Amino acid sequence: MAKLVLVRHGESEWNKENLFTGWVDVDLSEQGVKEAKLAGQRLKQAGITFDIAYTSVLKRAIKTLHYALEELGQLWLEEHKSWRLNERHYGALSGLNKKETAEKYGDEQVHIWRRSYDVLPPLLDKSDKYHPANDPRYKDLDPRVLPAGENLKVTLERVIPFWNDRIAPQLRDDKTVLVAAHGNSLRALVKYLESISDDDIMELNIPTGVPLVYELNDELGVENKYYLDKD
Amino acid sequence: MAKLVLVRHGESEWNKENLFTGWVDVDLSEQGVKEAKLAGQRLKQAGITFDIAYTSVLKRAIKTLHYALEELGQLWLEEHKSWRLNERHYGALSGLNKKETAEKYGDEQVHIWRRSYDVLPPLLDKSDKYHPANDPRYKDLDPRVLPAGENLKVTLERVIPFWNDRIAPQLRDDKTVLVAAHGNSLRALVKYLESISDDDIMELNIPTGVPLVYELNDELGVENKYYLDKD
Repeated sequence: MAKLVLVRHGESEWNKENLFTGWVDVDLSEQGVKEAKLAGQRLKQAGITFDIAYTSVLKRAIKTLHYALEELGQLWLEEHKSWRLNERHYGALSGLNKKETAEKYGDEQVHIWRRSYDVLPPLLDKSDKYHPANDPRYKDLDPRVLPAGENLKVTLERVIPFWNDRIAPQLRDDKTVLVAAHGNSLRALVKYLESISDDDIMELNIPTGVPLVYELNDELGVENKYYLDKD
Repeated sequence: MAKLVLVRHGESEWNKENLFTGWVDVDLSEQGVKEAKLAGQRLKQAGITFDIAYTSVLKRAIKTLHYALEELGQLWLEEHKSWRLNERHYGALSGLNKKETAEKYGDEQVHIWRRSYDVLPPLLDKSDKYHPANDPRYKDLDPRVLPAGENLKVTLERVIPFWNDRIAPQLRDDKTVLVAAHGNSLRALVKYLESISDDDIMELNIPTGVPLVYELNDELGVENKYYLDKD
């Protein structure tokens, strides 16, 4: 049976400071590094080894992957990075303090931006330093796919092609696959895998640094699901 | 014009202890980590950014790549790992102290093993823990390609197919390519690139952690070659 393990990156410097992050390439905090290593130790204890790994092009996910793989003795594993596994792009909220944003726009509006499936945040101007058009890592992409702000719906629409084209074929081939990514790109995967409704998915929170294991049948239906959260 | 940068990994724990290492998966020392970061800083100062990176399946090279890319702000870069970029396999000398080996086999014999192009070291038995047949990272390879001990000639014969099939096409496409690898796999590349004789290549020593830059013309002939060794 194929096994898929999802790991959400540990605490970042901006989580600590309570800023909207999205596609801003913020580093892990010391705590985040510890969480990533612990994820690797738990995978090791569970006796899980991987055939292939996927991550985003953001360093907090990439470093989570590397720290976990090193603990597992599998730093040599084949890895693939894609912008499609990036966090939800928070648009013009990127870099703003969550408290200040609430004071400016009101608690209710911020709650809507954070918790509604299909309401977009205020969009970034193309000239903004946080717009992906100004980041060399996206230079080979068609400008039309670069987001200026995303909701979970849009995030899912760009995650799932990567799932279908790259990850799912490995699982159909009975491979054991690791995906190290972000709260919302993982939420998109989980929604798709488990056919969760638009409303329910917004209530689902994947804890940071805790490996989430799916055992999948030949049709990639979920046979078993559990967190590796015990020491 | 295409640019190729070679970086030899920094000091490992076994370099420090003067042991034959080869394919044994030894970590970087603290000094080695510093060297890797310095390599990244020098690349940054030189204004070089990469399109793609290659490394071996040994963690001292992989971590050198990751530390350097992080300094450069390019941890998101596409990377490919291959056993073909591994260090020369030191066979039954793996894990032995260089001094003790000299006492056992004689200085001259050890000098021949280290410095001759085509004399093989004593080979490992297939049951030995250091034989690649007992390492899961090589499980998908045909057992006939797994070495029990290599000289530089054999090392070159397995490095060059990877050069021709994977790295050279990127350079023909005018990409800027980073290769983080080992003393002898890089020596093999340099021998092939510069058509260095079997005798002369054994005298060529690539310093650890110092980026070696090649500017190559359309036929991948060397137009310019320099080390980034200034701060």
